[in-house]
Amino acid sequence: MSFPTVGVIGAGQLARMMVPPAVDLGISLSLFAGASTESGAQVAPHVVGSLADREAVLAWASHCDVVTFEHELIPQELIVAIENSGVKVFPKAESFRYSQNKLEMRRKMQELDLPNPRWQEYRGGEVELEFPLIAKSISGGYDGRGVFLIENQQQLRDFYSSINKPLLLEERLNFDYEIAIMVARSPHGQAATWAPTLTVQRDGICTQTVTPIPDISEELAQQTVQIALAIAQGIDLVGVMAVEIFVVGDHLIINELALRPHNSGHWSIEGSVTSQFEQHLRAVLDLPLGDTSLVAPYAVMGNVIGIETQKDSNLYRPYLHLMARTPALKVHQYMKELRPGRKVGHVTLLGNDLLHLRSEVSHAVDYLSGAIDE
Amino acid sequence: MSFPTVGVIGAGQLARMMVPPAVDLGISLSLFAGASTESGAQVAPHVVGSLADREAVLAWASHCDVVTFEHELIPQELIVAIENSGVKVFPKAESFRYSQNKLEMRRKMQELDLPNPRWQEYRGGEVELEFPLIAKSISGGYDGRGVFLIENQQQLRDFYSSINKPLLLEERLNFDYEIAIMVARSPHGQAATWAPTLTVQRDGICTQTVTPIPDISEELAQQTVQIALAIAQGIDLVGVMAVEIFVVGDHLIINELALRPHNSGHWSIEGSVTSQFEQHLRAVLDLPLGDTSLVAPYAVMGNVIGIETQKDSNLYRPYLHLMARTPALKVHQYMKELRPGRKVGHVTLLGNDLLHLRSEVSHAVDYLSGAIDE
Repeated sequence: MSFPTVGVIGAGQLARMMVPPAVDLGISLSLFAGASTESGAQVAPHVVGSLADREAVLAWASHCDVVTFEHELIPQELIVAIENSGVKVFPKAESFRYSQNKLEMRRKMQELDLPNPRWQEYRGGEVELEFPLIAKSISGGYDGRGVFLIENQQQLRDFYSSINKPLLLEERLNFDYEIAIMVARSPHGQAATWAPTLTVQRDGICTQTVTPIPDISEELAQQTVQIALAIAQGIDLVGVMAVEIFVVGDHLIINELALRPHNSGHWSIEGSVTSQFEQHLRAVLDLPLGDTSLVAPYAVMGNVIGIETQKDSNLYRPYLHLMARTPALKVHQYMKELRPGRKVGHVTLLGNDLLHLRSEVSHAVDYLSGAIDE
Repeated sequence: MSFPTVGVIGAGQLARMMVPPAVDLGISLSLFAGASTESGAQVAPHVVGSLADREAVLAWASHCDVVTFEHELIPQELIVAIENSGVKVFPKAESFRYSQNKLEMRRKMQELDLPNPRWQEYRGGEVELEFPLIAKSISGGYDGRGVFLIENQQQLRDFYSSINKPLLLEERLNFDYEIAIMVARSPHGQAATWAPTLTVQRDGICTQTVTPIPDISEELAQQTVQIALAIAQGIDLVGVMAVEIFVVGDHLIINELALRPHNSGHWSIEGSVTSQFEQHLRAVLDLPLGDTSLVAPYAVMGNVIGIETQKDSNLYRPYLHLMARTPALKVHQYMKELRPGRKVGHVTLLGNDLLHLRSEVSHAVDYLSGAIDE
């Protein structure tokens, strides 16, 4: 029937959440998984292999109509090798590197005249920025990993010699809050954004999101959209991308890019006419993009994160309590083993009473992660 | 992690549409399929077997936490055999027979003092009803199959001797329109209905649904809900059920029951906080039921039905046109081969401009089924 197969490198929860829209649209998925037990591999066709085994990856890719990713930890050479084998890969290697290499990302934002924090590359030597500052691994970091607060010159030198790799240094911003905006773009150049999202962080990990951002000025919201669209076009994005942005007074400063479906867009599964996962599939297949309108005044999403004091590893048990308490709560269970700091699920609640939504979502998350038991 | 497995007998599109909520909730599905190519079997774990092979069904069922159905064509003895093997089956055999046997259904509605048309069992002999009348196969009919308009006594006699089985005769109603209401009920006895749905029929097959019913009186809508809840309790329903109802002036007359997710509830996938498919899983697992509120003023669903003059069997080709024309359209592709009269997909559109919604849905359906090509 000529329905396409989308290959996904990676088989975590982001691949898992592509399954519902793929089933609806009749699109086949094929995951390249590390193990059959991974969250996405549990519910989608997959092959198991190592990204180090280039032949295996190319053999798998040759059966896909297009290949995409659900995480950034994929060697550039491998993406280029798939492209060279004649299989379409989206985002392209040339675009994807801005998600993988923070230094190239900063240079590109500068070239596009978009708002960076003050930054410099560091390979030892002189520091132009004031201390304390932020030092970042140039590649491989996510969820606050690979990001370090550096108090002084001596600490920087010690840190640099311990890791022995170039660093990206950035000014430490005293930001008011952090937001994220999802944008999708197709090979034809059609682009669409969703409403900007407030991301509430704890220890560098997002715990809750609120969409749209309460009390944001129309002007600032519009600037956010303009930035997202400018980046999407500037890096020739195909697929969906999250742009994380710091708000400092009336100014916006770009923090990070993630060229894939992103935690800050999970609210869109129920909260938007078209979810980020459906949109990603449509974009990489060069189908027209879907309507990104909200379906409710507010969508609040909470991440279920494993904690140290977990009492009960049976995450099914709380279903009875939560579903009885909040019949409108949408529960997403990734079927991953609980470990401290690990995202194992999320919940979403739509409505217009923001205080109520946020408190119900907080309760649900605490209950699911085992932090409370009532 | 103690997450349950729901066994589903049948692997058509209704089983397929259980996959998205199962993936979200972390619930495993296991289908008992006739073939791996069936719509649901394409996207869910399954075993292939025949319902005539009782040992195979019981062996499969023994690995499930609960067994349910996606169609009515299942021998009562088989359901009872699964129950006797100690595996939970919902709906229970005792309830499910009202979905399978139209004569028992009529007797039960009468016992519950709910509005039947005038009816009688026919095994030859005298006819109390006026001609023309409706003759129905007592079991095995669906989608207008097994329903016959009989003009006179001679025709009835000929028909009866040709099929040589008892018939259910019903008065031919001159109804104003036909509606359906979905109801869910759990083993604990918690019940929930969705808004009643207008079902637009052509040649005995539903082509479009509109939810809620435009211009229905509050009183009539309430009566519909009362009837659905009374039946659900009266037959000790567990799972979801569709109640099809004729509206004749200010009167409601029960037409059919279907004890499973039903075409007239497909709108709930996008149109309600909790879809009929998620609710069915929650009900058979005895989880608290979800919120059945609408998320938009109107939800219009259109069935994509194969036609004789089909020009192009590639159902993917129209995606480009439809998605570009109506970015908010939600397309559900069952991945079944096109055959005249066969439901191969559906589309849903939410909004407040009913005329616009109905015309866009009609266009999409005609385009997908190949009736038009622009």
